[in-house]
Amino acid sequence: MPDVNHHDTIRAVAYVDGVLRLLDQRRLPSEESYIDCRNAAEVAGAIRDLVVRGAPAIGIAAAWGVVLEAKRLATSGVVVSASALEPAMQQLNAARPTAVNLAWALRRMRLVADGAAGGTIIEALAAEARRIQDEDLAANRHMGELGAALLGNGVGVLTHCNTGSLATAGFGTALGVIRAGFGSGRIARVFAGETRPWQQGARLTMWELVRDHIPAKLIADSAAAHLMSTGAVQWVIVGADRIAANGDTANKVGTYQLAIAARHHGVKFMVVAPASTVDMNTSDGSAIDIELRDPGELFGLGGKRNVVDGADAWNPVFDVTPAPLIDALVTERGVIEHPNGEKMKAMFGAAA
Amino acid sequence: MPDVNHHDTIRAVAYVDGVLRLLDQRRLPSEESYIDCRNAAEVAGAIRDLVVRGAPAIGIAAAWGVVLEAKRLATSGVVVSASALEPAMQQLNAARPTAVNLAWALRRMRLVADGAAGGTIIEALAAEARRIQDEDLAANRHMGELGAALLGNGVGVLTHCNTGSLATAGFGTALGVIRAGFGSGRIARVFAGETRPWQQGARLTMWELVRDHIPAKLIADSAAAHLMSTGAVQWVIVGADRIAANGDTANKVGTYQLAIAARHHGVKFMVVAPASTVDMNTSDGSAIDIELRDPGELFGLGGKRNVVDGADAWNPVFDVTPAPLIDALVTERGVIEHPNGEKMKAMFGAAA
Repeated sequence: MPDVNHHDTIRAVAYVDGVLRLLDQRRLPSEESYIDCRNAAEVAGAIRDLVVRGAPAIGIAAAWGVVLEAKRLATSGVVVSASALEPAMQQLNAARPTAVNLAWALRRMRLVADGAAGGTIIEALAAEARRIQDEDLAANRHMGELGAALLGNGVGVLTHCNTGSLATAGFGTALGVIRAGFGSGRIARVFAGETRPWQQGARLTMWELVRDHIPAKLIADSAAAHLMSTGAVQWVIVGADRIAANGDTANKVGTYQLAIAARHHGVKFMVVAPASTVDMNTSDGSAIDIELRDPGELFGLGGKRNVVDGADAWNPVFDVTPAPLIDALVTERGVIEHPNGEKMKAMFGAAA
Repeated sequence: MPDVNHHDTIRAVAYVDGVLRLLDQRRLPSEESYIDCRNAAEVAGAIRDLVVRGAPAIGIAAAWGVVLEAKRLATSGVVVSASALEPAMQQLNAARPTAVNLAWALRRMRLVADGAAGGTIIEALAAEARRIQDEDLAANRHMGELGAALLGNGVGVLTHCNTGSLATAGFGTALGVIRAGFGSGRIARVFAGETRPWQQGARLTMWELVRDHIPAKLIADSAAAHLMSTGAVQWVIVGADRIAANGDTANKVGTYQLAIAARHHGVKFMVVAPASTVDMNTSDGSAIDIELRDPGELFGLGGKRNVVDGADAWNPVFDVTPAPLIDALVTERGVIEHPNGEKMKAMFGAAA
């Protein structure tokens, strides 16, 4: 019996006694080390520098960042209030632009701060951060079942980036569907794209899959279409950083290319993300801010530069997959097949 | 005036006085070092280990390998003949399976060996190897003009892998078109995919482009479709390792994915390769042997492993782009738009 619960030992984001302990994902898999954040500025830095990454995980980390800020204010003798917390919230929100879960988690924390009485605000904020984290884990387990139920039997799947325990409160979104699908025998083969330039697939997804004893093969991102042409995969399953009101989905760069290739080969394409990733205030993909990172991220790996001096690069780290290329959108609220604006509105409500 | 002749100083394959000097392309761009091959076995090893790569360049290197073998035989007192050379030819031919230029160059050398008189066979073989090398350079310059003439004005282009002076006798195939097109002002912007896992785009193409002062940006292979969606490129221009009788084209893995994405965006797709890359004896792409290399090539870069122990990988290093996705096939014999079996036969003759 495959051990698909091994991942429960992974704690990418853990708050204990006034310290937010983050598994340093830049150092995996060669080193399992942790970074302790004691205030919101440190949490924002950890998000920006990719110590913690993955849309749900950065939302959770940001929520705990607000708790740390509230404690810091109280220790400094400042009355904790929504307005006193606002500068830290803005700093956290600016750490990365594309994933909407960050803004969503901060909005929840702001509502709690607005509503809480002076003496209990820190406890109320900590309870809300805990709820955000616990709800994410529960959502992932539910999405795992919903997504796996869409698969045939004995299928091959391809995933991109890392959407597992490391990217969430646990279990994962797309990788949660893969865990559930493998556990129930619906998935026979898993392929993971290495995901340049940060290699989240190579470093993180393969680490999680090997820990769970799920048979998987790493591929170069550029081998995906060739893989599809061999008939080895029937589904591409990915996460999301922001889903617009019409179903257009921003995710790790390369996702769009996979969606185009999948459609070309008749391979199905599934997006798995918690409802917090849906942004009904963003009308479509063209309105999503795509993060451009330092060109230098493309100039080497393993600390060794391998591009000539004087070279330039273009380094967008997300792209947008238009809704018409998506066969199934899975959130904890249910499955939308062939998402469009009407179906999105019916499930997620109108824009605020 | 841009200096597009700077590349003429690059000599990836140079035969001088009984030694084949190969620029060690694994060490570029950080180090410009050379490996001297003194016999065919060393040449075969250099081809297998990617010291020299690029379909035309490995054909040229193999031809010189036959000359080295003829000299070795003569020095050992063995009568040089086609049959005496055969074991070395087979060793060279087996060094890499996908590029047909290797077999083509060896066939030319075999014909010369068959026809030459005993006393002059070494000179005849050396003259033929020189001709193969010189003809390749001339073909590249001609293809550069033919391909550039297909472009509009001020277009953006995306290329993949390395198809420049390093991959050929000089100037390059796809990169030759880019050199010619930039020199004549038809090309305004160049993007190069990094080309995992060996990074030929990042290490080699960027090196050539920077030397030639052609403004270029490196991208992650997986960013290509997103790039196309921005409207920044109008053409994808790539080389080839084998072109089947129906126009199906094997090239570096990732090419197929680019062709699918290009068609999706209305971006044109051009293949540039010498006629020696055409294999009319291969009916279509399904008959092309796709080289699978060591999974370990995907487990790191810069000498540092970044994938968990126990992980597996699938590492095909070529793929096949079906002819219907190709808008223009450029060889030194001319341009075929929308290649198919009939047009290929008209230009390249029937199978042998």
